Amino acid sequence: MTVMPAPGAIPPDSGDLRSITYDADGERIEIIDQRWLPHVVRRERLDSLDSFATAIRDMWVRGAPLIGATAAWAIARQMRRDPGDDALAHACRVLLATRPTAVNLRWAVESLAGILRPQASGMRAAAAARLAHALCEADIANNRAIGEHGLRLIEAVRERRRAESPARAEAPVRILTHCNAGALATVDWGTATAPIYLAHAAGIAVQVWVDETRPRNQGAALTCWELAARGVPHTLVADNAGGHLMQRGLVDLVIVGSDRTTAGGDVCNKIGTYLKALAARDNGVPFYVALPTATIDWSLTDGAAIPIEERDAAEVTEVWGALVGDADPAALARVRVAARGTPASNPAFDVTPARLVTGLITEFGTGAADPHALVGLKQRIVAASAPEVAAGAA
Amino acid sequence: MTVMPAPGAIPPDSGDLRSITYDADGERIEIIDQRWLPHVVRRERLDSLDSFATAIRDMWVRGAPLIGATAAWAIARQMRRDPGDDALAHACRVLLATRPTAVNLRWAVESLAGILRPQASGMRAAAAARLAHALCEADIANNRAIGEHGLRLIEAVRERRRAESPARAEAPVRILTHCNAGALATVDWGTATAPIYLAHAAGIAVQVWVDETRPRNQGAALTCWELAARGVPHTLVADNAGGHLMQRGLVDLVIVGSDRTTAGGDVCNKIGTYLKALAARDNGVPFYVALPTATIDWSLTDGAAIPIEERDAAEVTEVWGALVGDADPAALARVRVAARGTPASNPAFDVTPARLVTGLITEFGTGAADPHALVGLKQRIVAASAPEVAAGAA
Repeated sequence: MTVMPAPGAIPPDSGDLRSITYDADGERIEIIDQRWLPHVVRRERLDSLDSFATAIRDMWVRGAPLIGATAAWAIARQMRRDPGDDALAHACRVLLATRPTAVNLRWAVESLAGILRPQASGMRAAAAARLAHALCEADIANNRAIGEHGLRLIEAVRERRRAESPARAEAPVRILTHCNAGALATVDWGTATAPIYLAHAAGIAVQVWVDETRPRNQGAALTCWELAARGVPHTLVADNAGGHLMQRGLVDLVIVGSDRTTAGGDVCNKIGTYLKALAARDNGVPFYVALPTATIDWSLTDGAAIPIEERDAAEVTEVWGALVGDADPAALARVRVAARGTPASNPAFDVTPARLVTGLITEFGTGAADPHALVGLKQRIVAASAPEVAAGAA
Repeated sequence: MTVMPAPGAIPPDSGDLRSITYDADGERIEIIDQRWLPHVVRRERLDSLDSFATAIRDMWVRGAPLIGATAAWAIARQMRRDPGDDALAHACRVLLATRPTAVNLRWAVESLAGILRPQASGMRAAAAARLAHALCEADIANNRAIGEHGLRLIEAVRERRRAESPARAEAPVRILTHCNAGALATVDWGTATAPIYLAHAAGIAVQVWVDETRPRNQGAALTCWELAARGVPHTLVADNAGGHLMQRGLVDLVIVGSDRTTAGGDVCNKIGTYLKALAARDNGVPFYVALPTATIDWSLTDGAAIPIEERDAAEVTEVWGALVGDADPAALARVRVAARGTPASNPAFDVTPARLVTGLITEFGTGAADPHALVGLKQRIVAASAPEVAAGAA
């Protein structure tokens, strides 16, 4: 298998690689403008409400957790400037209008506003900063917990291999992932990537197969970039290649993220996830989904009921990247791969039925993707969010 | 589902759309230089041995049958110029060196040379032209026969639907295909496309889902182009979309081509084919492979034994197309979608196990993809190539 070396995959001057950074009192909020990744690493300081709204609306930041975190800091910044009721209401309106269908955005904005509204205006700036900070830290903690639970699965592959053949125990554990359920989609760690980063930090050799993830190429552009930034060995492949890799015994584990998981365990994720789940099943490769429990839709059982967003056909017919042969690394361009006017369809997500999912990795642990196990998970979530009630009932 | 209209998908001045054209005596041989499709339709007249060798080596023509046909005409042209033994040997050497692993090229060159060598040099020019002509016409006839047999499958979908709901009988039969097993890969008709073209000509409404086919985009660039040229309704999709389309009941039939099929019925074809076969099986969608029997490898049973070509990683990290926004439709460029130096792997084919194949459509008819049926097919091929022996045995 030909694998090119990756020197210089990350520009040496890229500075901090966190998707969003903040100090304790919310004085300085910076994000990576992800529109230019992986070709240009552009960090932007966000300050005015407008700058936050633009960053969310125009997808400088993307990924549900990161959008929520950015919106929370937008409110905190606004409260420093003007903590009045009108300013709070205005900030909420502006932020909610940026990505009207983003569930996590709505949740973050309404949660903060609900807590801030009853407070005296003089208290709001500090309270909002504390809330934004807590929201970010909770995201990090949840992802880290997902990572710890997923790490057990990676360790288990290594132990199984050691039992079979001690000589092969130190060979890399090979993990395939799809799209970017990575640190760039969250405040840190990512979901599908968290187990990988923890394994790498623990000195376990890993090798990540990264699906390109057409049509938007989030695997090629974002996942490869963040794995390179953290020194994790990885290899980019066309989305078409995953089945072949599994057939030839080159994948130990699949770990993907999820946009929405039903109470029945069906997993809605980036288009193409279902095909990898089928290949995993056909080849006896474990297929795991890493997700914070906040993305479980308890109102739905059957994933077939999830409406699938149909995006712009130009995402299929055109590809964006750095002009090859241009000395300027920031010379970016878009090329059309089909004849002008070629009809195209662009469903953005698909649904992997629960029967194909080996397990769901959440901040509470790894469990089966079935209605029974999910009822148990829900009880644990309720208990964790109201510990005194749970203690009283015990 | 958003589908853009396709006006102007084929430039109005594109002229003849056949991959190769020839007159009866081999006076004028023209090909489409496929390197520029779909953005520029450039026809080239081939005359000197060098021009033929360049066209084959540099992939102006591609697809096993078309390469064989082009090589045959190269020998015919050479024999007009110099029918001597040395010239014949030289032509064979030059042509065989262009694509050393192309089985069909070797077969065409050695077949012609074997017939021409015993002939008097004065006879060779006319004989070579007759042979090249016959080889091309045989390819067309085989593909047309594949088309007739495949047409029955498309008609059956329509009839089944009519029986279920007369109102839906006239709705298009929706066929998904992968890569380009089209007219552009053959002298005419193609293999996977032949049933589609015949259905369209017979007035049966068809709608073709065309997989983009990363990393070389033959679906987007070639299959969409040739379907548009012939007025067949089609929609380009990312390779990731096929499973979702089948889950939602939007695919009636999958038809793909094959580079090599084993005597056990395992099908080696463009990378990603296997994933579509898995999705077809999971959703009860018939999965057919259209192939001339010449591509069956009778020496192999198990497809896992087929070595898979690993191609240049740059095919994965870079995408070629027409510069969007440039007024000049011939302004072509290459963009890199991952960070510079990103490691990539590029397996070019995968193997679909026989158990996932509903049937093989060959010039002899449609049969099961299993060793028993293939033994029967082999007997028919032997009988057809030696009819007098078969008649004598009857």
